[in-house]
This record gives sequence, structure tokens and C-alpha cells, in this order.
Amino acid sequence: MPSSRYYTLTAACPDRVGLVARVSGFLAEHGGWILETNLHADPDNDRYFMRIEIKADSLPFHLAEFRSRFAPLAEELQMSWKISDSAVKKRVVILVSKQEHCLYDLLARWQSKELDIEIPCIISNHDALRGFVEWHGIPFHHVPVTPDNKQQAYAEVARLYDEVRGDCMVLARYMQILSPELCAAYPGQILNIHHSFLPSFVGAKPYHQAYQRGVKLIGATCHYVTAELDQGPIIDQDVIRVDHSDSVDDMVRYGKDIEKTVLARGLRYHLEDRVLLNGNRTVVFR
Amino acid sequence: MPSSRYYTLTAACPDRVGLVARVSGFLAEHGGWILETNLHADPDNDRYFMRIEIKADSLPFHLAEFRSRFAPLAEELQMSWKISDSAVKKRVVILVSKQEHCLYDLLARWQSKELDIEIPCIISNHDALRGFVEWHGIPFHHVPVTPDNKQQAYAEVARLYDEVRGDCMVLARYMQILSPELCAAYPGQILNIHHSFLPSFVGAKPYHQAYQRGVKLIGATCHYVTAELDQGPIIDQDVIRVDHSDSVDDMVRYGKDIEKTVLARGLRYHLEDRVLLNGNRTVVFR
Amino acid sequence: MPSSRYYTLTAACPDRVGLVARVSGFLAEHGGWILETNLHADPDNDRYFMRIEIKADSLPFHLAEFRSRFAPLAEELQMSWKISDSAVKKRVVILVSKQEHCLYDLLARWQSKELDIEIPCIISNHDALRGFVEWHGIPFHHVPVTPDNKQQAYAEVARLYDEVRGDCMVLARYMQILSPELCAAYPGQILNIHHSFLPSFVGAKPYHQAYQRGVKLIGATCHYVTAELDQGPIIDQDVIRVDHSDSVDDMVRYGKDIEKTVLARGLRYHLEDRVLLNGNRTVVFR
Amino acid sequence: MPSSRYYTLTAACPDRVGLVARVSGFLAEHGGWILETNLHADPDNDRYFMRIEIKADSLPFHLAEFRSRFAPLAEELQMSWKISDSAVKKRVVILVSKQEHCLYDLLARWQSKELDIEIPCIISNHDALRGFVEWHGIPFHHVPVTPDNKQQAYAEVARLYDEVRGDCMVLARYMQILSPELCAAYPGQILNIHHSFLPSFVGAKPYHQAYQRGVKLIGATCHYVTAELDQGPIIDQDVIRVDHSDSVDDMVRYGKDIEKTVLARGLRYHLEDRVLLNGNRTVVFR
Repeated sequence: MPSSRYYTLTAACPDRVGLVARVSGFLAEHGGWILETNLHADPDNDRYFMRIEIKADSLPFHLAEFRSRFAPLAEELQMSWKISDSAVKKRVVILVSKQEHCLYDLLARWQSKELDIEIPCIISNHDALRGFVEWHGIPFHHVPVTPDNKQQAYAEVARLYDEVRGDCMVLARYMQILSPELCAAYPGQILNIHHSFLPSFVGAKPYHQAYQRGVKLIGATCHYVTAELDQGPIIDQDVIRVDHSDSVDDMVRYGKDIEKTVLARGLRYHLEDRVLLNGNRTVVFR
Repeated sequence: MPSSRYYTLTAACPDRVGLVARVSGFLAEHGGWILETNLHADPDNDRYFMRIEIKADSLPFHLAEFRSRFAPLAEELQMSWKISDSAVKKRVVILVSKQEHCLYDLLARWQSKELDIEIPCIISNHDALRGFVEWHGIPFHHVPVTPDNKQQAYAEVARLYDEVRGDCMVLARYMQILSPELCAAYPGQILNIHHSFLPSFVGAKPYHQAYQRGVKLIGATCHYVTAELDQGPIIDQDVIRVDHSDSVDDMVRYGKDIEKTVLARGLRYHLEDRVLLNGNRTVVFR
Repeated sequence: MPSSRYYTLTAACPDRVGLVARVSGFLAEHGGWILETNLHADPDNDRYFMRIEIKADSLPFHLAEFRSRFAPLAEELQMSWKISDSAVKKRVVILVSKQEHCLYDLLARWQSKELDIEIPCIISNHDALRGFVEWHGIPFHHVPVTPDNKQQAYAEVARLYDEVRGDCMVLARYMQILSPELCAAYPGQILNIHHSFLPSFVGAKPYHQAYQRGVKLIGATCHYVTAELDQGPIIDQDVIRVDHSDSVDDMVRYGKDIEKTVLARGLRYHLEDRVLLNGNRTVVFR
Repeated sequence: MPSSRYYTLTAACPDRVGLVARVSGFLAEHGGWILETNLHADPDNDRYFMRIEIKADSLPFHLAEFRSRFAPLAEELQMSWKISDSAVKKRVVILVSKQEHCLYDLLARWQSKELDIEIPCIISNHDALRGFVEWHGIPFHHVPVTPDNKQQAYAEVARLYDEVRGDCMVLARYMQILSPELCAAYPGQILNIHHSFLPSFVGAKPYHQAYQRGVKLIGATCHYVTAELDQGPIIDQDVIRVDHSDSVDDMVRYGKDIEKTVLARGLRYHLEDRVLLNGNRTVVFR
């Protein structure tokens, strides 16, 4: 169905009069049919953010030519920008540990084409989920992580990710803290789901922390991984109600339901180029 | 603070290539600084919707001249459009019955300038809330409604509304069904809060209906009033959880909390020109 | 871990003075350690509902003897009651069509023992999910349903369910309307997930209905199946926010997330004997 | 309407076999008709919590005699307990600053008898809300608080509270930190609404903190005030969604809506004796 193919242009630049006119003018000049436009001005730092979906076959040229034609304007406007093609599936590498709820959830979405991605491989520090992954026809790599081998282990993760030319790495309750080198190597490419409503309950055993504090809602947070633990830019969050009758185990169970939903939602936003970084915060063009 | 004054342009028109470029080009040509832009294309009917906030003092002319200069372009693009000025407060007439929760809520927002409106008068079919209204320095009109006098009563409501040049009429749990004539006279100007999650439980005693059906969430709906009861375009909705231990009275009590919040939210969207009609549905540029 | 084994007593009876004293007195007399108690009096019909979890090894006898000893008291109090044993896993038969999201979700919960049940077989009117089901070691039965064979098809479903001595039948987006005979044969045993916030949008294509009406929240409802379509007692519901930018396809996608969560939650309540029928409404002792 | 009068017995004690039987047996012996029962066992500390509503006219004696008759049993069971009478209105003293949203909300609930309490006086560190309070016929006390006079100011607050024999003190966005002496003098009697989802964003300007961190939900927390700032037992919490387009001012505005709702809900739970302390956590028998 070529007519549904579209390009997604995202850009951030200093705000100024005529910005939208210049960009939309460029598109109009070449007959570009706009499907969806999202714009945001941040008055605190005078930055402007945009995301525009353009029908691919409305333009008289392909992406390479778009890029070369658009570049001078982008340079003039001091833009950091990119444009992606809906026909090119993103390559998502999933990292898991032993807990299966997020993995089942992501693979169900991939099977039904709700997530229209390629999963070139899945990496785990345990071998437990190999059979399930391989049944889906996806290569599975067991990369054990011990206190002593972290450096080699994460080098191997990076090697596997590079080998398959990954676009995005998803920590689907991976339960390991990546090395600062790995975080630094793929900025804005690694998504994590943290099992608390950040910034509450950073670090280990957040449901235990939540239980001890006696909160009445528990949450989950999808964020980009940075070298500082649980401090990366937040993409999405959600909460669910608990009460005094809920044990830590109950919270863990309820929490799984929001973990998988929030991770899937955050991942979708990321894959559809709906997330733009604004310092340590995000613009999410839902 | 003149620098924070802004104009809000809203428009709906057939979708076409170059639409955004034409409108933003017009603004850029006159130095218009865009504060906020919301755009929506409805692929079902090929209609395009836009809302643009422009810094007032970035333009070299006032609204009257804006209107005359913009008109030819708007006509060419077959737009229905309007532009409003943040410095001109909207005049909101509130209709109440005996229940006070929505009225207290709206007046608190008005007192704190969260709702930056004028309330030229409040009309009620009962005299119960006169003292509270008049303490706030707002004229109060008691217009009784009986089975026999509906026509005269609503004529009087219309007269009062016209007399103060109302921009918007809010039924803040008014509990009376307006006449078809009144509804027809002010399309898109009358907002109601219905105490159910429409389309469930249309008409009288929705909490009783909800209780009988045994639903696990109850809701409230802010919508434009049309001649057909509870069928007007929906602006906003929300729900709250109930369970078997909640009586009808409990539901009524919980419901009030969402009624007032949803009404205030819907009213704010309306007053800020964030709501555009799209057939019997709404585009709400939050 | 025998010490964590417990019995769950559920009962409904006419309300009267001394009811709790009689039942808790019976338990105390035999040393019964109560883990959890939920009680509800319905003032509308003077019915009383209770659910009590008792530590199995605190009682000096097993279930058979409990039943015979408790029966006279239950009869005196005009109770309908039952008691179940946490050590006896419930046997849940799942019916699916071609959509996999609820099935993946339920099997993930079963794999992780979050749902501590047996799944003796899965039945589908399509063959699409056979591989996935069989990989989990669960028998899969393809029972096609056509306009002409409904009676035989549902007879076959009933035969399979009886053969494995099913305790509960779950329609995990089965997309077929069961025959009245099947509904009548297993009252309070068949759970469905309807993809709308009932009573809104009964029947086919609820997301299309929701889109047409322009609602701002969409929902899902887990309910017991009765002969009257989508009218059975509601166990749980939830909603998610949508707006004008969401197409029907978007709604379908969002809806899946609440469908699977609400179905899993309702099923858990049912399996833990937390749901008691009160006419066409439910008492859900969360 | 004497028949709707009821007593509310709340108790906490060590868990043991036969506890419910003993207490419900005592009630049954005197013909006590139980309207509502909530029970909770905390397996972590083997404490048992109960709340029982008893129809007043079903008992052959009044509260004084109930207390003396029940005392021996309570002592035997090592209970901390109390019983209250629905016919005796609780006396609630409200402390406010200049922001009116919580005050309007509470007074609307009091006017409509949703909150069936006495408000013997309202205390503020500003004089701004005097007129509004006095219009409602409630005494208003202006007690300024400066860096230098805190000790005298809080002594005056305590004196006023004692003078009217207050049962409960509500900080309705009071914006001042009470002295440790005041907190210590009225444990479990002072309710605060904090404008964040605790434990996130303790202390000043939580919405600014939330904005800086880029969270996607903001919240409010109703808790008991203790000497340690924002660390007291949590009664209720709620959140609302925000996104990148929301400024700090927008968050403040959205936040008000949940602040007032959460405060009102927490206060109602407290006034209906639904909140029992369990260390620094709460049991809330909703």
C-alpha cells in the first residue's frame, strides 16, 4: 500500500518569527501533503520543536534528495533534524532477564504488527527465555553478567547490537545496570522501564520502598538510559491504586501491568519519532 | 502586561497542499510571533483544523485590520474562522438550580483569576443561591421554571443573556431541559455538565441507572447543548471508580467531584477557543 | 509450603443480627485462623455477603468434614455458600479467535505462576494460534463456527469443557456469540471481555461506535456471559483517554491494552472467589 | 431520623484466633445490628485492625454504657480502640493562607451537608479570606506568622483550637510549616494537603521541581502532619497527566484540582474514622 507510506521530519532549533512558514513553505513548494503536524515552543529556552508527517508519494523525490534539498534551510535555521521513512522498519534489540511479562507483551505486539519493527535478536543474562524467543524465530543470545565480567559482558552486548545494526535497545525488565560506556555509546537509543513512579524510589526494590512509605499509588516510568541511574529523560509514566491490604507481592503483580503498558507506549512514541529531547526533559508529540 | 497579550486564530477548512504554508506565511510576512500552534487533519472528511496563538504586539496592526487583511486568504481557502483577543474577557452567564458544588467551584476559579472571565449575571430557577452569588457582587436573577411557563421562562433567560451580551452560557447542574428554541438560538455557546459517562445513562437519574446496571466506574460529560437531549458534541469526560459498597448516595457524592472538574476543564477549553466542531464531534486542542 | 494453604469460604444469606458472630464463632471454636475477611450488607435487599480466608492447617479437619460440620449452621442461616481449597488449582478453558493480545497476556501470567491455574485446553474457531498454544504444552482444539453449524459447534465446546472438567471458561476476545444453551449451562462460569465501557456500545464494532459518538474515553468491561448479549453482571471495567487525533485503529490499539488488563483482573477476582452475584450486579471483594 | 444514627467502633490489637468472634459475639449478645464491617490483618507485624458500624437503636444502651461494658474485653484483647457517635458532629478547624481553592471546596461540601461537620472557626496568616468566611457565618481569626513570631503564632493557633474543642485541624494549603510542638500536641489530628505525589518533591515549590524533572504525571498527597516535614502517614493521593506543553503555571492550575479533591477525600475518611495508623502507614477502610 504505497500511498500510506510517509516520511517523518523531526527538528529542534532556536525559535524565531517565520519558522513554521519556512518549513511548511519548503514542503508546499514541492507538493508535500502533510498528514500530521506537531509543534512546540519552549519559552524557557526559546527552543522550537516540530514533527511533521508527509505523504511519501506526494513529493517528487526520495529521501536522499529531500535531505540534500532541505539541508541548506536546516542549516540557516540552526536545526538539529532528521527524517525517517515509514517503509524502513526500525531494528529493536530487546534485553531481558528472567521475568517474562514485558517480553510476552512486546512479542504479542510484534506478532500482531501493532509494533511494525524488526527484532534482529534478544539478549539475556539468563537462558530461561530462550525457547520462547526462538519459537518466534528470533535469535537469542545468552550473555551472562557477573560482578567480575561486566566490562566484557557489556562489550559483547554492544558488539551484538552493532552487528545487527540496531536502532534501539529496550531493557524489558533487564534488572542489570548498564556500564557508563554502554550508556554513553548509544545516547537516546536505550529505553528502560523502571518499576516506580520516578523520581520516587530510585534504585533497587522500589515496590518494597513504596510499601514501606505507605503510598496509595504505585507507578512505572519509561525513560532513556543515561549514565546516572534512573535519572534519564522520562518518556512516559503511569500509576495504579493500591491500599493497605496490598502486600509487596501484590504491588509487584499490579506493577507488572503498568510496566508493560508504559514500556510499550514509550517505545511506540520513540519508534514513531514522537520523542524529542529538550535537555533532560522530553517533548512527546502524542 | 501588554507583552503577554495574544490573539487566537481558529479555523476549519478543506484540507489541501500548502495550507499551513499559506497561513503561517501570512503571519510571518507581518512579523507574527507564534506562541502555540495546533493542527489536525481529519482523513475521514478531508477537513483541516487549526488554532494558532500569536503575540499581539508582534503584529503591526490590530484585530480589525488583521481581519480585513486575512479575509481574502480565508475566503480562498474556504475557511470558517475567527480570531479572538486575550485582552477581551469573555462574558459567561451561569445557570444553576439548587445544587451548589459546580457554582462554588466556578466562582473559586473566577475569584482566583484562574478563569479570567466576566460573569455578568447568574440565573437560577430557585432563589436558594442568591445570597452566595450576590456576596460575590454578581447580579442574580430568579427565573422560576414550571411545567406551564417554560416558554416564557426560557424567553426570559434568552433576554437576560442577550442583555448582557453573553458569549457563553454554562449549565452548572441546572437540572432543567432547555427549550429547542433556546438551544437553536445559541449553537456552540451553551455548555452542560451531564452526570454520567455519555452515551451511557442519558436523561434523568443517571446515578440510579448506573447503580442498577452495576457499573464499576461512574462518569461525567461536558458537552454542547443541542435540541436532542444529551446528544450534543462531547468536549470532555472523566470517570471515577465505585464498587459494590457504594450506594446511590455515595455515587452522587463521588460524581460531584468529577462533574465540577470536567465542567471547569471543558469550559476552559471552550473559552480559550480550543474546541472546534467537527460534525457532532469535537476537536479539542488541549 | 503447607502453611500457606488456605480455604476460602464465600456465602450469601439474609442479613440478621449475629450473623458474623455465628460464622466467626464456628471458626474460632475449631481454632480457625482468619487471614482475610470481607463482608458486605446490601441494604436494598437485606442480603449479606461474606468471604473469609482461613489458614488450612489451623483447622483440625479437612474440607469434607468442614462442609458437613458447617452445613447445619449454613442451613439455619439460609446461606448459599461454598468453600474452596487453595491447593486445588482451578481448571480454566480459554476460547480465542485470531487476535492474540489477550492470549499472550494470559499465558504470560500462567507461565510466571501469577495465575496459578491449570489450562487443560484452549479452543478456537480458527487454527491461527495453534502453534503458540502447543508450544506451551497446552492442547489446542480447532472448532470452526459457521452460520450453519453453531449448534454443533457449541455442543462440541461444551463437550470439551466437560471432558476436562473445566471450572471456568474465558472468552479472550472470542468474537463469537455463544448459544443461549451454552450460556444457560454454565451460569457464573463464563467470563467475557467486551471492548467497550458497558452499557455504552453494546454489540458489534464498539470502537467504531465510540469514534462516531466522539467520546473522550474508551473502555473495556469484563462480565459474566448470560443469554442476553453484553447484559451480564459486570466484574470489572477500565477506561483510557483518547482525543480527536485518534482514529478507529488507534482506539482499537489502545483498547487492547485495557482489554487484557481488565480481563486478567476480572479473571483473578473470579478465580480467587472474590466475585459474588447479587442479582445482575456483583459484589467484588478486592 | 434516629434510625439512621450509628456508632463506629475502631480498634487495633494483636492478631489471634477468635478475635472477630469475640467482638462480633459481644455485639450480637446485645442485639447490635452491624451496618458495615472492615477488617484487616497485617501479617508483617501481626496486628489486626477493625472498623464496625452499628445501628445505634439496635443496642439497649448508650455509648457510655457501651464503653464500660466493652472495656474488659478490649483490655483482654490488648486493644487500642474508640467508638464514636454519628449524631455528634466533629469540630473541624481549617487553616488557610491566601489561596482559596481548597477553602471554597470544603465550604461547598459543608454547605451542602456532604461534610456533616461543625466548623467552629477558620484561622489564617492573612486577612484576605475573612469576608468569604464570615459570610458563611464562621468566625475568622487572623494570626499572622512571621519569621520572628512563630512560637507565639502557633501558641495562638493551639489556644484557638483548644478553645473551640477542635477534633481535627485541616491545613487547606496553609503554606506554613507548623512548629514541632504543635505537631506533637495533636498527633493524628492534623491533616495537610501537599502539592506533590509524595515522596517525590518534598518541601517548597514541588510543581517547579516536577517541571524540572520532566515528569509526566503530577500529584497531591493528603497526610497526617508530623514533626518531620512531608513525612507523615499518607491517607490518600492522586495524580493528573501533564505533558511538555504544560508550564509550571499550568501544573499549578491542574494541581489545584487534585489538591482539593484529595484533601476532601482524606478528610472524609478521617472524619468517618476510616483511617487507622499502622506505624507510619495507614489502614484506610474505604
